[in-house]
Parts: sequence; structure tokens; C-alpha cells
Amino acid sequence: MNYRIGVDLGGTGIKAGVVDENFNIVCRESAATDAARRGFEQVVEDMVRVAEKAAAQIGLTLSDFPCVGVGTPSCISPKTGLLVFSNNTNWRNVPLRQELEKRIAAPVLIGNDANCAVVGECVAGAAKGYRDVVMFTLGTGVGSGIVIGGKMYAGADGMGAELGHTPLIYGGEPCTCGANGCAESYASVTGLIRDTKRAMERHPESAMHAHAALHGAVSGRTAFDCAKEGDLAALEVAERYCDYVAAVIAGAVSVFRPEIVLIGGGVSNAGAFLLDRLNERAVKRVFAGEIIGCAPIAAARLGNDAGIVGAAYLDQW
Amino acid sequence: MNYRIGVDLGGTGIKAGVVDENFNIVCRESAATDAARRGFEQVVEDMVRVAEKAAAQIGLTLSDFPCVGVGTPSCISPKTGLLVFSNNTNWRNVPLRQELEKRIAAPVLIGNDANCAVVGECVAGAAKGYRDVVMFTLGTGVGSGIVIGGKMYAGADGMGAELGHTPLIYGGEPCTCGANGCAESYASVTGLIRDTKRAMERHPESAMHAHAALHGAVSGRTAFDCAKEGDLAALEVAERYCDYVAAVIAGAVSVFRPEIVLIGGGVSNAGAFLLDRLNERAVKRVFAGEIIGCAPIAAARLGNDAGIVGAAYLDQW
Repeated sequence: MNYRIGVDLGGTGIKAGVVDENFNIVCRESAATDAARRGFEQVVEDMVRVAEKAAAQIGLTLSDFPCVGVGTPSCISPKTGLLVFSNNTNWRNVPLRQELEKRIAAPVLIGNDANCAVVGECVAGAAKGYRDVVMFTLGTGVGSGIVIGGKMYAGADGMGAELGHTPLIYGGEPCTCGANGCAESYASVTGLIRDTKRAMERHPESAMHAHAALHGAVSGRTAFDCAKEGDLAALEVAERYCDYVAAVIAGAVSVFRPEIVLIGGGVSNAGAFLLDRLNERAVKRVFAGEIIGCAPIAAARLGNDAGIVGAAYLDQW
Repeated sequence: MNYRIGVDLGGTGIKAGVVDENFNIVCRESAATDAARRGFEQVVEDMVRVAEKAAAQIGLTLSDFPCVGVGTPSCISPKTGLLVFSNNTNWRNVPLRQELEKRIAAPVLIGNDANCAVVGECVAGAAKGYRDVVMFTLGTGVGSGIVIGGKMYAGADGMGAELGHTPLIYGGEPCTCGANGCAESYASVTGLIRDTKRAMERHPESAMHAHAALHGAVSGRTAFDCAKEGDLAALEVAERYCDYVAAVIAGAVSVFRPEIVLIGGGVSNAGAFLLDRLNERAVKRVFAGEIIGCAPIAAARLGNDAGIVGAAYLDQW
């Protein structure tokens, strides 16, 4: 059996998984990232330790793998190996690949987490068999991964493919990136929660208040759950959110004309309610969509595992 | 001397040019398109005739060329050779390549005009030597051409790269494509003229009225010319327009991270006034632009010839 290994370096946790030939994660390890309290070197040490422990579960060491792949929500320069920018850890221009390679007797490849996720979905998930894919992860932010002709595409310098930071509403809500009105500021769970809270303020009669009280907080589910139950204020928020996402997808389809568009991240739990609307609406906004059509928009399949699986196969994409 | 030939099929005119090894158009021919009054076949006959006449000027026939390249503002399917959709001629799914190949004893390649323009600029213009390029033509509409790794990129089915139809203002002004708030509906000359006229209505004191009277009409120059002379209402329109274009460019740079961004089309006549603002502002909107930076934004060099030169080299891109 040929195994592969992927590491997911997130804002809260470091996760490693060993992937078998059937693309199943057969053993896992994890630890807290805790980058705020600890230095870069300590986090690197932990990444290695977590990966080693995962490998040890099946009697392997890291040198037994063709490579060690790492996915992380950051700008990574494939040329220099530098982690150029990470919002989560607040690192700037840290030599992540070099420090890992000092400690690991195998080639280290590092990719943006959303880029790893689309590779994972291509290898073993909802995009298996497709060669041209656009994926959006609708979570705290809006990540995106692009596959062109069977290869991961991350822009000329490897730090692009940031469809979440294309405009949606010029002059609109502030975005985490410092600009205004980016797709991320409306199509993320964060944007959805903001818009849900605003609708709740305007609509004291809405069932969303009881839903939020029951679940302890307003979440990305509040509007969708209540919309499905017929709450009008919730329906308005959910419909508008679907429309935002459809517009973002249509913009990407007008450029990349992929074979399939995948939706991952927390919002994808909204299921058919979301996907039906996206499929119905995106085609109307795609350039010449009434003639050429639009790729089907489907849910990603691997969930949080996509990043680990994709990282483990980065060398092939 | 090895010559090449390119044909530009536009809404008003058919133009053909023979290109020499120094990328100069050494002979030209043209005719009216007049697709409204005439059938598709007649236009095809004229395209062949115009190309033949251009070739005959230097004693060549079309079979002497390695290929005949055609650029046209349409969705072209490279797989089927169909012109799938053209706003100008109102054609749908017409077999343009097949009909041309029946009449021409050389391979025929057809590309979208903006895609041809970026190839032309790469071959012989402002993008010479660059392998990753994004170009916007700001004219009646907003065309765009993308070069990735030295190859023209037009989406998986060859009908994409339509950055003009990515969103800029969700729910905004109607776009020619049927959607609302596309980049094209603000960053085109058409959008600029609309916004100029609106500002003129609000500002009867503006120098733009006298400028328009002098030149016979409100044009894409009205606001820029008057802004440069210090007219405040014009300055507001021109500044806002620059900001729109900067936002559109920044979105594309966050995805493609090109080495250079080119601006062609009528608005590029605004010169340094436009380019200085684009270069200053786009970097502020690019994802992680304060760390990674943004490609320089420069004027295209070949003007209307870019399409012919690019079409002539389509087989190499």
C-alpha cells in the first residue's frame, strides 16, 4: 500500500492525516496551533510532531512518504517557500517550507487551504474526473480553488486564485482584506451572520430570534433554517444570500467556464435550498448563459478532510 | 520573408492585414460588415475577399500563409468552430470556421477580439516578453484577454475570459449581457458616458456642457478632458470611473497575479491621468497587495491593430 500524508495548519488547530490508496484518511493526529502565544518555530515543531505521530500509527516515518503536503489559509509563495501572509497567525514572510524541510526527510509542498481543498475534491470527492473546476468554500471567509486542465491554478506567482476578493458591491461592506465590498464580505458565513442580525433587528417578530436563543447564538444556519420553516424575514436574508453567491459564481464561470462548480464550507449545509437557487440563478448571470449554459453547481463531498487529502497530493497537481 | 494574415470581423467593418516578421501590418483591406442587411454567407464571402485582396497586395494568395486568423467580438467555440453568440451581428451558432475553411486553402483559427488583442500585445506590443498578462479593452463594452504561462487562456471551453461580466455592483446598472451591475456596465465608455450625462444634469454649471457642445456630443473624453482642466463635476466622474476600473483590475489581479495589466480601448487615451490613478489604487484593493504588491498597469500599444496582429498569430498561442 502506498500512503500519502497531508497536514492542515489552521488558525486553531494543526491536523495531520495519512491517506491510503483509496483516498481514505486512515490515521489522524492533531494539536492546537496557538500561534498567538507561541513563536513560529514552536508551531513548526508541532507540525512535524503531529505528522510524525500520524505516520507512526501505521508504523511509518515521514521519510517513507513521497512528500509531505501542507495546506494553510495563507498566501504561500511556491517559488520561495515563504508563507508571505497569514491573517490567522499574523505571520509575514516566514520561511515555512525551509523550516519544515530542515526537520523532515521528504520534499515539503505547501499550498493555500482552498487550493488544497479543490485538489482533494478532484482526487477523491465531488470533482473526481473533472479537469476544469472552480470551488468556493463559504466559511468564515470565502476561499476559492481553481483547477485548469487538470492542474491546480493559483495565479502566475502561486498566490492568486482569490475569487473571494473580487468585487461584488463596489463601495460596500468592509472586507477582512482591507478593501470594501469583496465577494467575501457578503458570501461568507460572517457576512451572512451580519445580514441575519440586521434583519432580526428590523423584524422583532421573526422566528430567527427564537432559533438563535435555542442554539445559543446567531449562526450561518439561523436564516436558512427559519427560511425553510416559512419565516419571511429569514427567507429574505436567505434568498438575498443565495443571490450574492450566484452572482459570484456566475462571474467566475464567465471567466473559467469550468465543467463543475463546487460549494464547500459551513454554508453548504444549507443543501438543496441553496444549491437549487444557485443552479437556477447563476446561469442567468453567466455571460451568454442562455446560449452556452453554466456548469452544474454541486456540494463538495470531503468536508474538512478535503484540505488534508489535497495537501497529500499537491505534488501531482 | 514569412508573412502572416489576420482578419478583424467587427460590427461595422471587416478588416484584414498582412503582418511581416517585424509585426508590422504591411498591407490592409477593409469592407463594411453590414450583417443586418446581408446574410451570414455574404459576410463570409466578403471576409475571404478582403483577406485575398490584402494578400494580393504583396503578390500572395491565402494558401501561402501558415493560417488565416480571425478575431471577432463574439463567443467562439474552438472545439466546434461555431460562432456561438455575437451581439453585433445577432448571429447564433453559425459555422464560421467551416464556411471560411470551405473557401480558404489554409487552416482557419478564430478567436474573440479581446483575446486576439492580448495576443497581439504579447507578440508585438506592451506585453512583449511577458508570460502572464491580463488586458482590458475599455470601449463600447469591456473586453478582456488573459495570457497564462505564455498561452492565451479563454476558459475551459474557449468561451470564457469575460472579466467584463464579473460583478462590480450587485443589483446595479443593467448590462448589455442581460445581468445587472457587471464591470462592463460601469467601466465601459458606454457606462462612462451615462455617468457623465447624469453629472451634467446635476451640474448645469459644469464645463462639460461647453465641451460636449464644442465636440458635438458627450463622449468618453468629456469628463476626463474637463477634469484635467479643473472642473469639479467632471473630476468627480473621472475619479469615480478610475476607481471602478481599479476595482475591476484588482479583482483580476487577486486571481491571476499577472506580471502586467494592460489597458486598451478608447478610454486609454486618458493617459497618465487614468494610469496613475489605476496604479495607485489597484494595489490597495488587491488581496494582500500591501505585502505582495500589484502588477504594473500600462497602456496597450497597438491600438486597433492588436486584434489583427493577434489573430495572425493565434496558432502559436
